[in-house]
Order: sequence, then C-alpha cells, then structure tokens
Amino acid sequence: MTNPKNTFGDHYLVDLYGCDPSLISTVQPVRDVLLNAAIKSESTILDDSFHQFEPYGASGVIIIAESHFSIHTWPESNFAAVDIFTSGNLMKPQIAIEIMQAGYGANYIKVVKMTRGALDTQRIQNND
Amino acid sequence: MTNPKNTFGDHYLVDLYGCDPSLISTVQPVRDVLLNAAIKSESTILDDSFHQFEPYGASGVIIIAESHFSIHTWPESNFAAVDIFTSGNLMKPQIAIEIMQAGYGANYIKVVKMTRGALDTQRIQNND
Repeated sequence: MTNPKNTFGDHYLVDLYGCDPSLISTVQPVRDVLLNAAIKSESTILDDSFHQFEPYGASGVIIIAESHFSIHTWPESNFAAVDIFTSGNLMKPQIAIEIMQAGYGANYIKVVKMTRGALDTQRIQNND
Repeated sequence: MTNPKNTFGDHYLVDLYGCDPSLISTVQPVRDVLLNAAIKSESTILDDSFHQFEPYGASGVIIIAESHFSIHTWPESNFAAVDIFTSGNLMKPQIAIEIMQAGYGANYIKVVKMTRGALDTQRIQNND
C-alpha cells in the first residue's frame, strides 16, 4: 500500500438470519456476545451502550479504538443486523463474525465489506 | 411493499472529504453537529457516547429508536466516516447528511445506501 491515507478502514455489514429469539430479545445476551466478539477479535474496547426495546429487541454499540461494533435485533423475525468498522490491521473481524453467528444461533449470514474513504482525497481537496 | 419483514432498514455509509480540521478534531463540535443532525432528521435519540483521541480525532455513536448514527474522524486527512442506520420510514436521513456536510465543512461527500436484511428470510429459515 503506497498511501495508507487513501483509505480509512473496512466496514463490515453483517446480516444474521435465523437467529434464536431467546438470544437476541434482551440486552444481556446480546451485549455478552458482542463484547466477547470484540474481545476475541483483539479490539480495544473504550465504551459501550445498549438499549432494551419493549416488548423485545435490543440495540447496542461498542466504541473500540479501531472504530466500532453495532447491533440491532428483530427477534420476531429471527434477524440481527451488525456492523463492524475497523481501521488499522490489528483486529480480526472474521473471528468476531464467527462468534456472533454462533452466539446468536444464526443459521445463515450475509457479509458485505465496504472500504471507507477509498477516493483520492488529495485530488478532491485540490478541486475546491 | 408486500412484506416489510423482508428488509430491516437502510444503512447509509457517508464518507466526508475535505472537512475543516477544526470542526472534527475534538468531541465537542463533532458531537454538536451529529446530535443536531439526529434531531433535525426527526430521529428519536436514546443515548450517545463519544471518545476523544490524542492528539486529535473523535469517535462517537448516537443510539436512536430507529437504529444509530456513528462517526469517526481523521482531522489530519480532512476526513470523517459517518454511518446512519435507519429502520422505518419516519426519519429523514438526507437532512442529516446535509447538516453533517455543512457542519464539518466537507467539500465532497460519497454516500452508499445499503438495504439491510434484504434476503427472503422465510426461505432461509426453512432451509435448516
């Protein structure tokens, strides 16, 4: 990579289908698995915030030194949407994805990886 | 839309180039603009968490009833990476994007919209 400043990290959008509703209905199991995924993928955890929806469903975010994890769950549809944004090359998002798939009991996942800031920023800054 | 359960929201990945470093170096202006974007786009704010990096740069997340906002900034490269995940049709992400572009002084933005959970979940659940 000749100019690392041309990209700013990889953003993984992970859709988890067929999840076990008992594992994604309340904050505690949702948070436990997401924190474990962050730790085992060698993220540096800075802060986390989770919210319980009624009658069921949870949202949560973990801010990590490398960027963030987020999750939103729809237990009534056996579905959870996760994203992992990681800048730098130190953490291991694939490990996090495997832990989440197992931890939420997903029977199918779809992962999209987007590179953030992939334009030639120098050229853009010279255009104004 | 015949079956709204087949998708779970739109996830906007917004890359902001050519930002004013003074507007993205510390938590206060970063948080002020992101909260204003959330409010003006008619999001329901539930919680927020921001982190200051040294010597400069900020990360932050706002959990909203409709899902979340996040931001990570690289002032040394005039760059900020935002995402807006919105489920339901009530909030107005385009207003949030315009407020962020102006508030961070970005001279160019790239927006990618990803629909989350766009597979036929019923079919997937029947496959196991």
